[in-house]
Amino acid sequence: MDTPRLTTNPFDDDKLREECAVFGIFGADDAAAHTALGLHALQHRGQEATGLVTYDGAEFRAHRALGQVGEVFGDPAVMQRLKGHAAIGHNRYSTTGDPMVRNTQPLFADLEFGGLAIAHNGNLTNALQVRRELVHDGAIFQSTTDTEVIVHLLAQAQGAVTDRLIAALRRVEGAYSLVCLTRKKLIGVRDPLGVRPLVLGRLGDAHILASETCALDIIGAEKLRDVAPGEMIVIDEDGVHSSFPFPPAAGRFCIFEYVYFSRPDSVVEGKSVYKARTAIGRELAREHPVAADVIVPIPDSGVPSAIGYAEQSGVPFEYGIIRNHYVGRTFIEPTDEIRNLGVRLKHNANREVVEGKRIVLVDDSIVRGTTSRKIVEMMRHAGATEVHMCIASPPTTHSCFYGVDTPERDKLLAAKHTVEEMRALIGCDSLAFISMDGLYRAVGLEGRNAARPQYCDACFSGDYPIRLADQEAQPGKSAQLSLLREQAR
Amino acid sequence: MDTPRLTTNPFDDDKLREECAVFGIFGADDAAAHTALGLHALQHRGQEATGLVTYDGAEFRAHRALGQVGEVFGDPAVMQRLKGHAAIGHNRYSTTGDPMVRNTQPLFADLEFGGLAIAHNGNLTNALQVRRELVHDGAIFQSTTDTEVIVHLLAQAQGAVTDRLIAALRRVEGAYSLVCLTRKKLIGVRDPLGVRPLVLGRLGDAHILASETCALDIIGAEKLRDVAPGEMIVIDEDGVHSSFPFPPAAGRFCIFEYVYFSRPDSVVEGKSVYKARTAIGRELAREHPVAADVIVPIPDSGVPSAIGYAEQSGVPFEYGIIRNHYVGRTFIEPTDEIRNLGVRLKHNANREVVEGKRIVLVDDSIVRGTTSRKIVEMMRHAGATEVHMCIASPPTTHSCFYGVDTPERDKLLAAKHTVEEMRALIGCDSLAFISMDGLYRAVGLEGRNAARPQYCDACFSGDYPIRLADQEAQPGKSAQLSLLREQAR
Amino acid sequence: MDTPRLTTNPFDDDKLREECAVFGIFGADDAAAHTALGLHALQHRGQEATGLVTYDGAEFRAHRALGQVGEVFGDPAVMQRLKGHAAIGHNRYSTTGDPMVRNTQPLFADLEFGGLAIAHNGNLTNALQVRRELVHDGAIFQSTTDTEVIVHLLAQAQGAVTDRLIAALRRVEGAYSLVCLTRKKLIGVRDPLGVRPLVLGRLGDAHILASETCALDIIGAEKLRDVAPGEMIVIDEDGVHSSFPFPPAAGRFCIFEYVYFSRPDSVVEGKSVYKARTAIGRELAREHPVAADVIVPIPDSGVPSAIGYAEQSGVPFEYGIIRNHYVGRTFIEPTDEIRNLGVRLKHNANREVVEGKRIVLVDDSIVRGTTSRKIVEMMRHAGATEVHMCIASPPTTHSCFYGVDTPERDKLLAAKHTVEEMRALIGCDSLAFISMDGLYRAVGLEGRNAARPQYCDACFSGDYPIRLADQEAQPGKSAQLSLLREQAR
Amino acid sequence: MDTPRLTTNPFDDDKLREECAVFGIFGADDAAAHTALGLHALQHRGQEATGLVTYDGAEFRAHRALGQVGEVFGDPAVMQRLKGHAAIGHNRYSTTGDPMVRNTQPLFADLEFGGLAIAHNGNLTNALQVRRELVHDGAIFQSTTDTEVIVHLLAQAQGAVTDRLIAALRRVEGAYSLVCLTRKKLIGVRDPLGVRPLVLGRLGDAHILASETCALDIIGAEKLRDVAPGEMIVIDEDGVHSSFPFPPAAGRFCIFEYVYFSRPDSVVEGKSVYKARTAIGRELAREHPVAADVIVPIPDSGVPSAIGYAEQSGVPFEYGIIRNHYVGRTFIEPTDEIRNLGVRLKHNANREVVEGKRIVLVDDSIVRGTTSRKIVEMMRHAGATEVHMCIASPPTTHSCFYGVDTPERDKLLAAKHTVEEMRALIGCDSLAFISMDGLYRAVGLEGRNAARPQYCDACFSGDYPIRLADQEAQPGKSAQLSLLREQAR
Repeated sequence: MDTPRLTTNPFDDDKLREECAVFGIFGADDAAAHTALGLHALQHRGQEATGLVTYDGAEFRAHRALGQVGEVFGDPAVMQRLKGHAAIGHNRYSTTGDPMVRNTQPLFADLEFGGLAIAHNGNLTNALQVRRELVHDGAIFQSTTDTEVIVHLLAQAQGAVTDRLIAALRRVEGAYSLVCLTRKKLIGVRDPLGVRPLVLGRLGDAHILASETCALDIIGAEKLRDVAPGEMIVIDEDGVHSSFPFPPAAGRFCIFEYVYFSRPDSVVEGKSVYKARTAIGRELAREHPVAADVIVPIPDSGVPSAIGYAEQSGVPFEYGIIRNHYVGRTFIEPTDEIRNLGVRLKHNANREVVEGKRIVLVDDSIVRGTTSRKIVEMMRHAGATEVHMCIASPPTTHSCFYGVDTPERDKLLAAKHTVEEMRALIGCDSLAFISMDGLYRAVGLEGRNAARPQYCDACFSGDYPIRLADQEAQPGKSAQLSLLREQAR
Repeated sequence: MDTPRLTTNPFDDDKLREECAVFGIFGADDAAAHTALGLHALQHRGQEATGLVTYDGAEFRAHRALGQVGEVFGDPAVMQRLKGHAAIGHNRYSTTGDPMVRNTQPLFADLEFGGLAIAHNGNLTNALQVRRELVHDGAIFQSTTDTEVIVHLLAQAQGAVTDRLIAALRRVEGAYSLVCLTRKKLIGVRDPLGVRPLVLGRLGDAHILASETCALDIIGAEKLRDVAPGEMIVIDEDGVHSSFPFPPAAGRFCIFEYVYFSRPDSVVEGKSVYKARTAIGRELAREHPVAADVIVPIPDSGVPSAIGYAEQSGVPFEYGIIRNHYVGRTFIEPTDEIRNLGVRLKHNANREVVEGKRIVLVDDSIVRGTTSRKIVEMMRHAGATEVHMCIASPPTTHSCFYGVDTPERDKLLAAKHTVEEMRALIGCDSLAFISMDGLYRAVGLEGRNAARPQYCDACFSGDYPIRLADQEAQPGKSAQLSLLREQAR
Repeated sequence: MDTPRLTTNPFDDDKLREECAVFGIFGADDAAAHTALGLHALQHRGQEATGLVTYDGAEFRAHRALGQVGEVFGDPAVMQRLKGHAAIGHNRYSTTGDPMVRNTQPLFADLEFGGLAIAHNGNLTNALQVRRELVHDGAIFQSTTDTEVIVHLLAQAQGAVTDRLIAALRRVEGAYSLVCLTRKKLIGVRDPLGVRPLVLGRLGDAHILASETCALDIIGAEKLRDVAPGEMIVIDEDGVHSSFPFPPAAGRFCIFEYVYFSRPDSVVEGKSVYKARTAIGRELAREHPVAADVIVPIPDSGVPSAIGYAEQSGVPFEYGIIRNHYVGRTFIEPTDEIRNLGVRLKHNANREVVEGKRIVLVDDSIVRGTTSRKIVEMMRHAGATEVHMCIASPPTTHSCFYGVDTPERDKLLAAKHTVEEMRALIGCDSLAFISMDGLYRAVGLEGRNAARPQYCDACFSGDYPIRLADQEAQPGKSAQLSLLREQAR
Repeated sequence: MDTPRLTTNPFDDDKLREECAVFGIFGADDAAAHTALGLHALQHRGQEATGLVTYDGAEFRAHRALGQVGEVFGDPAVMQRLKGHAAIGHNRYSTTGDPMVRNTQPLFADLEFGGLAIAHNGNLTNALQVRRELVHDGAIFQSTTDTEVIVHLLAQAQGAVTDRLIAALRRVEGAYSLVCLTRKKLIGVRDPLGVRPLVLGRLGDAHILASETCALDIIGAEKLRDVAPGEMIVIDEDGVHSSFPFPPAAGRFCIFEYVYFSRPDSVVEGKSVYKARTAIGRELAREHPVAADVIVPIPDSGVPSAIGYAEQSGVPFEYGIIRNHYVGRTFIEPTDEIRNLGVRLKHNANREVVEGKRIVLVDDSIVRGTTSRKIVEMMRHAGATEVHMCIASPPTTHSCFYGVDTPERDKLLAAKHTVEEMRALIGCDSLAFISMDGLYRAVGLEGRNAARPQYCDACFSGDYPIRLADQEAQPGKSAQLSLLREQAR
């Protein structure tokens, strides 16, 4: 056995994947349990590996492993060992870095001033370039993650830990929402454009940093506010300190967080994700009305938009597809025959609902289109007389380099095909995407170009708000680092 | 560590649990893979353990383990070893028998005529009495399952395997949908009242027996028909043979299969489960209309009834509660503080949907009521101004002895309290249950007492259609068998 | 991976293997720990699997697994669970029965009178015949061990457990030293000829039954006496009871126990094994003197005989071969090149001792001869000028059917070749075996035929003192039972 | 569970422990299998963890784990993955560094010039001081091993890898026998005093570096020569290159390698270890003759000296103590009662040999003396009338800082007590140690002070030939590094 690649089933391969979640808490008894709960609520942002580091006033303690939060932290003996009043944690889906334990965050280093743990959501766009310089000067990397670049820059800087962190972050480019833990402080930073989310919350005397508000809800904490783009939050015994160490810039929050990444019960950048999605569905129904008998969501991600679409159109909303939630990370080794069953592992047609009907399938996005084609075929096989498809985002035409696992550009269906070509490939009777302006309207603006784009929408527009230094040097998604190949331990 | 009890989170403890699923296939290449897929589709009928036995013309091979289908059969090396053209499989949730591997089905015995594997959905009501007689005569039991009683009766009978099976089944009382595998035959039998479901399907030249049609769908098989109450189906190289070895009786299919147990995309006893549930929701809305702003399902089981309720009432359907599907079998060891978070592990309020609203929560049933109370509290905490609760089944007042894991009667909320008392305990503004007649109407009949009850509704009525011999001898749920305590292997 | 066959390295494949050890204790606090220690001292009698069953006045508890005693019982959590004042245990090396957990003893059955655990050293020679009859009458076997036959006979007998056990043992033929544990009693029985050893000991108020005295030493217990051939010992709260339920017979203890099976520090049938072996070495030196420079034992089993040989001959004893005791149960997958290194995994020439010398290698026996050939070659490669080989037993010409794992007869080198042919095949300069009379003299008698043979020496003589019913019915070592193939759990 | 400390039984705790073995091979097909075999032969030099790194012309591959060689490399799937024609490996017993996987060698780093793997036998005496400087300059350490200091020095040096390695080694002080693997070279270095052994061998076209010759024997390789103190050997496609990069110094090889550490079948520094030990035994008999009936070795380490003692004295050599070689790494959780059995887990008296006899026990050394006391008591309990003890080394009065795991000085029995006091504590009738001159004579010199001490004998003399910089700065055995505590992965 090689490094156990945690395969998800075919369906998930046809989604963009947020690569990470971060969580930190300072000042709570049993910080580890709170962190594990927070990570559990953020599981949708990374299911491949998880880890947490605590500090109890004397020692840093860690547990990091491949697997889901419930598995990794389900053992009472593990949790008992993770003592401390402060902790940070991380869920990961690999963008850079292989799925090996060595890459599992939080990263930890024993620096001159003491231990430092760090967890990162996002992706640095000049990590390879900086790494090369660091290695030339004698730095020894232990992981293939871009995050380790920050740790080395920090180790070589001088002064207090916050000064060192600022110095380090001034050397890197890209998207990051970071949490760091030292013996005295919990620190959170968001990159100047605020591409990835980060919120500040409170539970009694404890303060919390988390990727989304759902991680506050699970522990009964209240949201204080979003961390602002370019803001550094330092939490210590004296309370919460805010500073803005980077040149001011207009925020460009990732609009895809509303479309798919964030949990529907989260409020990100002041907006309810669920409401944004039902609004997208309504907008979609206005832009692309279809004469149909039933609105069918592709579960689970298409559900809120389908509810919006149904409300707007007056066509009944019904579960024409049933999803099997027991689909785990691995499954039966696919013989060719079994592989062709693929789609049925996770979804099954609810024949009684779709038979003899004109249906509108609502999904959040189309990436490769492989799943869409299978779902359409399944609907026709179940007796649907017409199958229309309405997509709650514009065509995904470009890769993301800011912390999302997108296929190479030439694997993106919309990068190579017109909408009509896509419709033919997918096999549906009609195919419609919400317009860019429609999407902006649904999240509460007047349209993309009303003033300046207030979001990062590079995956739809190719308009990359942060320089892609490594990409320009070496086009192609990611340079392979020549690290040791070792079995997962 | 003792036998690792696969704990589910608190929410699931407040549901009745179907204890088992069965699946069998004869005449297919790679029978094991088909069976594993079928068991995967039937995962909702038992998540504690799973197993399958194949026959390849020379050897029987088995793999049985605690865990879910995807875990147990996810290892290619395991699947490769399970050669054969015929197989049976089983998912279990314990009714009788501890959660030990020894109790994991299919059971296997090397009898005089050769090997026999057997898997059972249901529960025998005179198993202890028969077991006592068998032990007196020198039989050695290896498990604590009621199913092993059938195996011993079969071993001591004479003649062909079908004759022996009939002789054995005539000695037992209770509910059973069985599949058996011998060197030459796949056999399926349903008890005379047909309490548990069993369907017959076909895929090319192969025939399949399965608890529900969703297990046919996943492998692309077509449903031929339901196995009839009291029918024995024998599948061999010559095809499918049907016989009725028991005295004729009026069927009493379990009505709770429509309410909760079966998958919504299954068609059981000729009726779509999804359509039955939306019909129940509509009936409930007619019986118990509420002045409200939004209909909120308790996901996932309350969703179809809530859709029906919303359609009938004209009140919008919205996801006011978000369910975290990553909740696995185990989780963080609960300190008291964490335990009180209980409900949030699986459900979170979608505040933006419920805040300032009068809501109707729709759920399938109330067992202990502990979860309902927490959900109501969560809704109020999220700002709901009124919380009404509508339940898609009559009050659950009696235990089931036919293959469902129900709490002792005195743990059933409805066994000890009036509806008004229940409302007060749960803390909602109003509480309503569908009437028995309403439930019968929803599943297509004129009412329970139109002619004779066509279903088993003992959990609502206390009207037990099969004698409870062991219960009568020893009141209390189950006699403890004095078996060896051994660590799970 | 299939059932993990616990492969030992090539060397062990060239030894006869005692298949089992038994141990029982009654009346001791922490009976499980004492039993585990006793089994540890008896590890040489079976390394494939081990198990123990305790009774604490209320429950029987078991732990049985593939592996060595230290591994299987090394986990404190395992030991803590095994409460009780009485216990029996077993080490096994498979004779009949696959190396599956199901075959691991003690076997346990919940019989009419309560639980019964049983552990067996020896082998029944009519087990298949009796098994066939039992299966015909409806008995269901769970293992492929001959021991389970006794359990079924016991289950079907009537009366008190001792009466049932006697009735059962009167139906079987073969060699057995048994220990049984019930709620009230620890029982030990030795077959009428006493082929396998069994001793009775005492530690404070507790009584112990064990295969060898070294198991008494490890817990500081004193030996009371050997259990006599045909004797049944019953230990209960009233003390120790002895009876002789079988017709009297002249004992035929296995003489190979002195040659190889028993530990040198054990006293079996009243004789020190170590002294017997040095006496054999002296006798061998008298029968087969060799002009040589150094006496080299093949470690470890050849050491005592080599010491005796050196003492008698006056030639120095030196370790010309060093054994690596870290050789575990599994090792590097042999490429052909690695396979040829085979012998060096466990033994290495001590070149400085043998170079330029005429050496006498002393070993206990020759089975297949494959190891002997490699050792001789290794000695020549290390510079020995002459290599003589002296064997501390007569030629092994016949298989054992009384509880020893011998190869089929045609794999025994001495069954097909004269001593001179063997010498040529092994490649030594001379080869000598002790004579049968010499062996008898060494263990303290006047010779084999002085009166009647007082030992079982069938492996040297072909004189089988107990009928071989199954062998006569089906010549060939063992009939394959058609049991379920299941992965080790 | 915390990091699983691989506990050995009490007896081993009373020995000094060599901490490491190294092995490297260049130019062999299946370098990994050869390395695993070599490590297996060197298992006595470290049983806690093992690892190997291969290079196949494209990728470095590693497998490192806690456990013994046979366990860690026993899985064919593991070995198959470890492709390559060059490899290095390591066994470890911790001196510095916790028993965590992160500390398991070979260490690996991806440096500017490519990958580098390194394995180290010995101990650096200024590692903490250099580490502190490196951390100050921004180096991030991943382990607590002294070896990582060398890797960082190497990363920060400039030029070719050999130049960097020389520069690094000039900064460190202590004892080391190193092997390094790069993409082009296998490098071996021995510290200027040559405290630890290292030999060069050949197998066909491949060259090998190993701690002892027994690692050459197991793969059929021939010894070419010892690597000289202060020598650097570079093996590449052009062959073997030798250089002496350090100032010349008189060698001080560890004399304890002859007494205990090395395997008896190894030839170290040109002398047979076995012959050295029998010579020590003879010298001991000359210095300390005893009137006795039998010479009894404490197995296994006392055997060769006992043979020498018996030869010289003419008193018979007999195994009066039998050792159980199945004692694994863990065992039954000791209750107090069990703990007192301690010594019997590994050794048992062979009563028939010692009863009524005056015996001389021969052992290699006395560390804490706890075992000696128990053995003497065991001998008396078995009936020995007099128990004399002769030790094959001078009293161990000082700790070793050059790669041996010695207790703190005040735990060494001989550091605090006269010989007579030790005798009384141990409870024997007489106690004698070989003299320092006697030891030197036995290994072939005229005495310690003939010219200058040709060996390091600091553990007997306190004469430390290499400066102890870290000890001088911080007296006490080892400074605790404040690394992350993480569960073994």
